[in-house]
Amino acid sequence: MARQERAIRTRRTILEAAAAVFDERGYTSATIGEILDRAGVTKGALYFHFGSKEELAVGVFEEQLAITLPPQSTRLQELVDSGLVMARRLRSEPLVRASVGLALDQGAMDLDRTPAFRMWIDQNTQVLGEAKTQGELLQHVDVAETAELLVGSFSGVQLLSQLRCQRQDLERRVVVLFEHFLPSITVPAVLARLDVSADRAERLLAQVRTERAAAAPQEATVPSGA
Amino acid sequence: MARQERAIRTRRTILEAAAAVFDERGYTSATIGEILDRAGVTKGALYFHFGSKEELAVGVFEEQLAITLPPQSTRLQELVDSGLVMARRLRSEPLVRASVGLALDQGAMDLDRTPAFRMWIDQNTQVLGEAKTQGELLQHVDVAETAELLVGSFSGVQLLSQLRCQRQDLERRVVVLFEHFLPSITVPAVLARLDVSADRAERLLAQVRTERAAAAPQEATVPSGA
Repeated sequence: MARQERAIRTRRTILEAAAAVFDERGYTSATIGEILDRAGVTKGALYFHFGSKEELAVGVFEEQLAITLPPQSTRLQELVDSGLVMARRLRSEPLVRASVGLALDQGAMDLDRTPAFRMWIDQNTQVLGEAKTQGELLQHVDVAETAELLVGSFSGVQLLSQLRCQRQDLERRVVVLFEHFLPSITVPAVLARLDVSADRAERLLAQVRTERAAAAPQEATVPSGA
Repeated sequence: MARQERAIRTRRTILEAAAAVFDERGYTSATIGEILDRAGVTKGALYFHFGSKEELAVGVFEEQLAITLPPQSTRLQELVDSGLVMARRLRSEPLVRASVGLALDQGAMDLDRTPAFRMWIDQNTQVLGEAKTQGELLQHVDVAETAELLVGSFSGVQLLSQLRCQRQDLERRVVVLFEHFLPSITVPAVLARLDVSADRAERLLAQVRTERAAAAPQEATVPSGA
């Protein structure tokens, strides 16, 4: 195994351990020692990647967005895709689930949880800004306001889905969210072409896995949980 | 003071104490003893109104909806009004704030928090159902889905506003939420007449206070914090 590849795997192992410990014990009670035990790595390895518990939390937050999806012909389709895929990953990837749990953990008083939301708001702001430049959005749309609304609404929708049925209906709820939002911001010609279906995320993730496997055929470690 | 009026005040005192203790200590750690101390009432008085800690929590949840607003010419205006007033009360009434905090407290593992959402979903479902019967909604609207989406989105929007700026911009965010939702569900003739302005809640609450004072001129205890 190449050195770089080994480092990437170690980092991932540490993040998964941190996410699990934060999830089980709460951020405030969790200790670096517990995360080391769980990850089965040395203190030196951990501190090579993360300087503090807070940096571990930021790393866990970053995992929410750590996926590159296939480009689409409209930016709004890419916005929809990232929301649908987030819903799917929340159901299938414990690390993503723990990351969102940490972002919403009211008990984590000593952690600045805003980066978790800001990263995602920034990404949406950028995509919506490009959509506006390309003429996909209605003239009146305030890109920054819409980006914040989308992230806020998604967070609440997934929370309600979690409370009501352990997120079993999350994809459907996110489809409903987009169905209510998009007509208010999208020009009709683009709206008519958007694919907002609950099984789209599954197809996109399969495509990502196929492309990764083709790019690195010797690697058999692409997460297939998604 | 009439006996009934005294009972209403005692109940309110107990609920405010319970909300404050849940807010500060978390539901799981809070004890009936602490709530008694805070409220300054006897054990008998408390158990006359609430049989258990869980019943206290449900009472705190109910306070979110415990307000009657002036009837409007469309049901959708009433839906908007209840959302705007909730935003305003979240900023001005500690009991409402604590109630929402309790509903979102992930640490309260031993409390069924779904009633807090279900009450509000049920109310929205009823109002939207009447709006549909009166021809205010577009034909394709699924009342139950829209009601769930609205409650989920509102919950997330207020959470993000809390994290970003201690809810200082909450009314504005709720206006943005309605501006994105309403065009997708409302027939144009009704949409054009809806008042979705950030200062509307303030005017409605002033009207409620005036009407209450007129109905009971001897009573000077209507909460003016709202």
